[in-house]
Amino acid sequence: MRLKGNALVAQSGGPTAVINNSLCGVIQEWLRQEGPGTLYGGVSGVKGILAEEFIDLSRQDPDDIAALRYTPGAAIHSCRHKVTDEDLEKLLAICRKHDIRYFFYNGGNDSMDTCNRMYEAAAASGYEMHVLGVPKTVDNDLPLTDHCPGYGSAAKYLAVTALETAIDLECVSTKNKVTIMECMGRNAGWLTAAAVLARRSADDAPHLVYLPERAFSMTDFLADVERVYQKIGHVFIAASEGLVDRDGNYISAGGSVDSFGHAQLSGVGEMLKQTIERELGIKTRCNTLGTAQRSAAHFMSKTDADEAYLAGVQAVRYALEGQSGVMVALQRQPGAEYSCTTVPVALGKVANVEHKLPLEWITEAGNDVTEDFVRYAAPLIAGEVAVPCKNGIPDYRKLNFQLK
Amino acid sequence: MRLKGNALVAQSGGPTAVINNSLCGVIQEWLRQEGPGTLYGGVSGVKGILAEEFIDLSRQDPDDIAALRYTPGAAIHSCRHKVTDEDLEKLLAICRKHDIRYFFYNGGNDSMDTCNRMYEAAAASGYEMHVLGVPKTVDNDLPLTDHCPGYGSAAKYLAVTALETAIDLECVSTKNKVTIMECMGRNAGWLTAAAVLARRSADDAPHLVYLPERAFSMTDFLADVERVYQKIGHVFIAASEGLVDRDGNYISAGGSVDSFGHAQLSGVGEMLKQTIERELGIKTRCNTLGTAQRSAAHFMSKTDADEAYLAGVQAVRYALEGQSGVMVALQRQPGAEYSCTTVPVALGKVANVEHKLPLEWITEAGNDVTEDFVRYAAPLIAGEVAVPCKNGIPDYRKLNFQLK
Repeated sequence: MRLKGNALVAQSGGPTAVINNSLCGVIQEWLRQEGPGTLYGGVSGVKGILAEEFIDLSRQDPDDIAALRYTPGAAIHSCRHKVTDEDLEKLLAICRKHDIRYFFYNGGNDSMDTCNRMYEAAAASGYEMHVLGVPKTVDNDLPLTDHCPGYGSAAKYLAVTALETAIDLECVSTKNKVTIMECMGRNAGWLTAAAVLARRSADDAPHLVYLPERAFSMTDFLADVERVYQKIGHVFIAASEGLVDRDGNYISAGGSVDSFGHAQLSGVGEMLKQTIERELGIKTRCNTLGTAQRSAAHFMSKTDADEAYLAGVQAVRYALEGQSGVMVALQRQPGAEYSCTTVPVALGKVANVEHKLPLEWITEAGNDVTEDFVRYAAPLIAGEVAVPCKNGIPDYRKLNFQLK
Repeated sequence: MRLKGNALVAQSGGPTAVINNSLCGVIQEWLRQEGPGTLYGGVSGVKGILAEEFIDLSRQDPDDIAALRYTPGAAIHSCRHKVTDEDLEKLLAICRKHDIRYFFYNGGNDSMDTCNRMYEAAAASGYEMHVLGVPKTVDNDLPLTDHCPGYGSAAKYLAVTALETAIDLECVSTKNKVTIMECMGRNAGWLTAAAVLARRSADDAPHLVYLPERAFSMTDFLADVERVYQKIGHVFIAASEGLVDRDGNYISAGGSVDSFGHAQLSGVGEMLKQTIERELGIKTRCNTLGTAQRSAAHFMSKTDADEAYLAGVQAVRYALEGQSGVMVALQRQPGAEYSCTTVPVALGKVANVEHKLPLEWITEAGNDVTEDFVRYAAPLIAGEVAVPCKNGIPDYRKLNFQLK
């Protein structure tokens, strides 16, 4: 027997190329299953919910809903907001007021914590509401899921960009002989590691890969660069923005912190470039792709897009089956051919746990990843999506925020 | 009556996403027309020719030749080398030695100068050789051609990346509220201007565009940023790496120069970011796409790819017709629908002339481009190429350098 009432879906944290696939999955499954009430979108995550900024998602143009499958960014907008106890009380009051009985929250670590607190607060106050987490993060650092929707597309973008810029580096016999690609990932090296996925032979780029999971030594780094340069004449380096020294300090901290207290980073690549030029005298270039890494939907991974959609669909199914306090996790199936299904996992076990790249997937020298990582990550970037274009530009759509 | 003898083709300067389309055009047209001798590839531009590093292009696998149409980077490698008078004499002696009667050189400004000097030196010494320039540069700064092969794909990549990263900026209600995209283009603003090509309405990104053609004023810049920020809450800026102040000094010069004496730039974006944060207190992010701009073949412009191929084909046709000392220029045809043909233009008129963005295509305030620019550039990014992929990665190929 389904609980009667309305539903609310919201997006949180940094967007990904496929985050709207999950939103699309939630909307289309809710409509397919004739969900027992109105499906609202909370504009700008919890910040918008606190301001009661809702839009009626069932009134959107079905073509715009379908276009969410290839449109990057958070279509109903997102926020980064640390929920206080006071916020939590208010959020719950707003849910009661609008008879929200199904709450879908799409985000990463911090958002799953918010989601879990919502679940616990509702339960403690005796308000019956199905609270479901839908995973999303290019950082791939959520626990208890094989991987996170959003990671595959960012990984594909980094692998392809590494391949293309390495071809550029290798084919010009003069000038810059070192290229550094600075990769996102505050504390986990998943994105940086993905740069190796286009490598076909041992001398192919990237030649050196540095992850935040291993302490960074400038001495070892310069020796690595010198060695590769002497051997093949050029060096392609993938470096995480979050590299730390043996004392755990970011090697290039900007000094400021965000609203969750995380250090804001910039400039690891530029710092390494200047060090190479000064100490080794080798001309170096640094490419800092920044937010393009998490928004490049024009070459998204079909596997990733499909799984992000599935996560949204399954959240609705689990909720309508009566589940609550869970996140939709991806579970890789055994067998030679890659396939994935979903399982519900307790939000309490997910919240605030950071899943880093296993140390055994990093080589002993700390400057590369192993074949185990490649076997894990390669299937996640497979497949292309033919994004509809108009006049050479992807035809990304916007939802109509006037439809309340 | 065709001149009997061999042909030599070489690539020069920074690669583009479509430079190999021109190489493919030269090879396939030479074979189609049963060119009167062997077609050699000079490895690494003039540097390789000076070392007599040739490969026999007719012996390459035809599938690998065909794959040049979607493979970025200089397939027979490139160089940046200022040819001395001594080099020139040696180059000519090498051409005589190998009976090179057709010389195809694919490059930008400096390369067209090299090409022109080769042509003049051959003529002066009474050695009959057809010297043909094939234009190539993402900078789009060659004169006497409507535009340059390579520009359309880089422009498309920048327009799409501006669109995607602007969506990312707009959809998160907190944190970074300014995004700077630093664009290539040492002295010409063509690439930076291309960031506007995905704009659909007045408030769309990029909100501010700064080009090297107009003197940059930090005071005006900060006022611009503040104004847009107050109006719409976030600011997307496209800034050229080559911005100069009213005295003509680069606002962020790295201090070093390349072998042609050009200043090596880095850090305009980072410098502007720091200034905004310090002076206006608005959190800013800088994306420096670097060499990805000229190598991102995975989303190349079909128009650009086809024209680059055509330029190679036409070079062979012109040469076999007996022309020499000319560059293959693209000529836009009159009419509502875009189309382009080619004309030969004298190398002497091309060499060392830098074609900048017309000042009348820059708005009075110096922080945007006009609709005239959009009308000019929009057709150049049209059309997509379905790049063959294997396991999610474009199947770029390498030529076999062992086939001498």
